[in-house]
Amino acid sequence: MKKLSIVKIGGNIIEDKVALKAFLKLFANMQGHKILVHGGGKRATHIASKLGIESKIIHGRRITDAETLEVITMVYGGLVNKNIVAQLQALHINAIGLTGADANSILSDKRPVKEVDFGFVGDVKQVAHESVNKLIEADFTPVFCAITHDGNGQLLNTNADTIASQIAVGMSNIYETSIYYCFELDGVLRDINDKSSVIKHMDAKLYADLLDQGIIADGMLPKLENCFDALHHGVKTINMGNTAMLTQENDNFTRITL
Amino acid sequence: MKKLSIVKIGGNIIEDKVALKAFLKLFANMQGHKILVHGGGKRATHIASKLGIESKIIHGRRITDAETLEVITMVYGGLVNKNIVAQLQALHINAIGLTGADANSILSDKRPVKEVDFGFVGDVKQVAHESVNKLIEADFTPVFCAITHDGNGQLLNTNADTIASQIAVGMSNIYETSIYYCFELDGVLRDINDKSSVIKHMDAKLYADLLDQGIIADGMLPKLENCFDALHHGVKTINMGNTAMLTQENDNFTRITL
Repeated sequence: MKKLSIVKIGGNIIEDKVALKAFLKLFANMQGHKILVHGGGKRATHIASKLGIESKIIHGRRITDAETLEVITMVYGGLVNKNIVAQLQALHINAIGLTGADANSILSDKRPVKEVDFGFVGDVKQVAHESVNKLIEADFTPVFCAITHDGNGQLLNTNADTIASQIAVGMSNIYETSIYYCFELDGVLRDINDKSSVIKHMDAKLYADLLDQGIIADGMLPKLENCFDALHHGVKTINMGNTAMLTQENDNFTRITL
Repeated sequence: MKKLSIVKIGGNIIEDKVALKAFLKLFANMQGHKILVHGGGKRATHIASKLGIESKIIHGRRITDAETLEVITMVYGGLVNKNIVAQLQALHINAIGLTGADANSILSDKRPVKEVDFGFVGDVKQVAHESVNKLIEADFTPVFCAITHDGNGQLLNTNADTIASQIAVGMSNIYETSIYYCFELDGVLRDINDKSSVIKHMDAKLYADLLDQGIIADGMLPKLENCFDALHHGVKTINMGNTAMLTQENDNFTRITL
């Protein structure tokens, strides 16, 4: 089975021009088929505030009203995505920037209103793996931003981590998939206060043990739940760490398998 | 030889939600392979002004400084392009939204500084017709906004009419191409004050005659020069008129051939 790497970067890299450039070089040098997924970071909040649009946060989560969705579409789908694509082209990677609407690649349901109305937020329903594969087979490198659509003309703001894992799950029909979640830490830490306590390999059993011992911290809990869910749905390996994990030399990151 | 239609719409349609929706239905119903090219209209100017970025116009032409390019990338490449793509998906057209950086499809040179420094403006150098054709062959419908790149990581603001004609010229290597320039008038008028004086067919000889008689008005001159240039470089037919020309029933528009 052919291999496919799905690399996700967050706001900390996107907002730092030097870090972004360095990351894109690492990404460009990765062997084999690959897909990039990026969030948008604080740029959208910054531009929204300049445009006089107030960011609404309820229970720590951003509410995406119509105006906020417009800003997200501009910043994630336009500014961030197209500049990444142009920079990858300069590195001779034939990148193609996408939302989930492009190539009908990621279909979502608008999140139902319960206690909170999150607005135009999408929960991924289906990844069109054959459509995405046409692009890969044609030697393009897809670059996804954190926007999907509902199939009825509505764009939807969607969590970038979820997009990465759902793409990986969808593409597992065709490829042996690995996800690389790039973040600030070197990996999942055994001791949150000790940056050198990276857990180099976590399997389902160790995860259960760590959960029992209360070692998995709050912020990491949904991320790891998301990871094991993806592994149970066909993803082979998930890697978490800083961007240096994309090089062959570095092994100081967390590799997660079932 | 297979046929390919390149349809260009301008700001007047993009800024009018009802008109845009009606146009997209007509576009969706067009038979055969097709490509959509759109400008951005006044939306970019409006958002730039909200962000406190002054629009600089010299000799009637917008100067694209770094800040203005960011707004254009947000509005053309993000907001306008992705909403068109989502709406086309709802009409069961498998659209894929592109700048010239995506799929390395349109390479430009930054316009040299002479009397005026236009800033980050691109003059199209090359259309990667094989790259664009991979998308068409994979049953995607490309939707281009008016942005290209220089291959070194720099996005460039580029005239949408020129993008349409250069794509048509480039794709003429593979297809029998027709351009449809949608604009406010029913077509090229023999008498600028008489909207019913549409010239239904213009060939090179009639064009030369009309030029001699001084009948081609100032605004139309560069458009028609651009058209005949494209025809001389392999484009088969160019149509100018309102969006009704995309239906089979209407023949009240200007068809231009050599």
